[in-house]
Amino acid sequence: MSQTKRVTAAVILIGDEVLSGRTADKNLQQIALFLAPLGISVVESRTIPDEQDVIVDTVNTLRVQADYVFTTGGIGPTHDDITADSIAAAFGVPIDVRDDALAIIEEWYARTQTPLTESRKRMARIPDGASLIENPVTGAPGFQMENVFTLAGVPKIARGMLEDIAHRLEGGAVTLSRTIKGEGLREGDVAGFLGALQQAHPHVSIGSYPYFLEQVGGKLTRGTQLVVRSTDEAELNSVISEIAKEVSRLGVEPVTSAL
Amino acid sequence: MSQTKRVTAAVILIGDEVLSGRTADKNLQQIALFLAPLGISVVESRTIPDEQDVIVDTVNTLRVQADYVFTTGGIGPTHDDITADSIAAAFGVPIDVRDDALAIIEEWYARTQTPLTESRKRMARIPDGASLIENPVTGAPGFQMENVFTLAGVPKIARGMLEDIAHRLEGGAVTLSRTIKGEGLREGDVAGFLGALQQAHPHVSIGSYPYFLEQVGGKLTRGTQLVVRSTDEAELNSVISEIAKEVSRLGVEPVTSAL
Repeated sequence: MSQTKRVTAAVILIGDEVLSGRTADKNLQQIALFLAPLGISVVESRTIPDEQDVIVDTVNTLRVQADYVFTTGGIGPTHDDITADSIAAAFGVPIDVRDDALAIIEEWYARTQTPLTESRKRMARIPDGASLIENPVTGAPGFQMENVFTLAGVPKIARGMLEDIAHRLEGGAVTLSRTIKGEGLREGDVAGFLGALQQAHPHVSIGSYPYFLEQVGGKLTRGTQLVVRSTDEAELNSVISEIAKEVSRLGVEPVTSAL
Repeated sequence: MSQTKRVTAAVILIGDEVLSGRTADKNLQQIALFLAPLGISVVESRTIPDEQDVIVDTVNTLRVQADYVFTTGGIGPTHDDITADSIAAAFGVPIDVRDDALAIIEEWYARTQTPLTESRKRMARIPDGASLIENPVTGAPGFQMENVFTLAGVPKIARGMLEDIAHRLEGGAVTLSRTIKGEGLREGDVAGFLGALQQAHPHVSIGSYPYFLEQVGGKLTRGTQLVVRSTDEAELNSVISEIAKEVSRLGVEPVTSAL
């Protein structure tokens, strides 16, 4: 593990239900938060429909751009679950029901006394050469094909599968992050100061995020969160303390938090 | 407005804070739900970092693939707000503080008795040839450059800006959607039936989405939502009633809802 190497990941969210707005995605956030302490940064995420040619193109584009790729969605038993076949097509390998995956599914369904229908057997279709990813929630496994990890779309299942992935990843330098929240602080009041501070610390990333909260009674509370990110803890702390000083000088109490 | 034309949109979420997992995006869902009744389908969404070359490439790729493009994020007063400059670069046009935008911001800040700093004036930087999009929440406008609409990242502000966009869009056939929720229904029990039904109705999209809900006391409730989408209401209703019949036959009460 190198302390300075930057290791990147791309996330592909597969699902018409996210694009239509019917479902709010939770997987990007949970994958990013899972990878960050391992020293892996998500650098791009794409949400795409359940269409094989789009899945193939997207996987083949991103698996050469990022060190790791994570897909979610489309590995269940129904006709709209086409991710496994699409990954096989992306890698140009055959796909069929595989004995190791089928054994896991058979044992799971026997234990839960659920009939093993032909549709459920479809979940044992695994691209040739992939290794399985354990699913502690519903049995049917995900799989890893080279640097591409294919997870379920249901957030609870995707989260469970991540536990069987951490040991397969080689991370780089961990990006640390601290936030200063200034209630009542407005971006325009600190923008000049922050711009100069960013220039003085080019290896630190300083982000400014205004927020607007509706309170009981309809009153709007506003403020700004200033987020500093860096792989260098000493420089991070020094930048944070400079910001805290400036925010105090403006008459706002700076509330610092990890993350 | 054609009743059969398919009109598409792509959404570009610009922001390190979404990729890092610090913030859960809400804009994709609200943009998709806003566009659906106008007859515009979101076909792809990308979440990208605050980096000009990435923004330029992504905008230039998607604005030829989709009928409309919506970007969110990066149009505030701070150093990390580089979206306006990036859009200008993508279109190869100059950008500077524009009088019409500055007048809006001056008037807004005068009314709210806020000092108009140099940083706040930056929010009047608008690419040449763009038209402004009204911001009813904080004043500083978004803008439209050809088929690309640039909105704020704060969901409340983005939502406000959408109201000034609807009249600029030409929609196509509206995709209707209905859901049958079957509590206790498992995907594997209906997968064969659904696959055959999908084959019999190729112009209707049938999606199957299992869910797992943790209840008080830790008990897990599971079920499946079956979502049917189509531009043809009669066919949609006929497919929904076939599904309802099958779900009932399996001993599960089908709960139908719009959307």
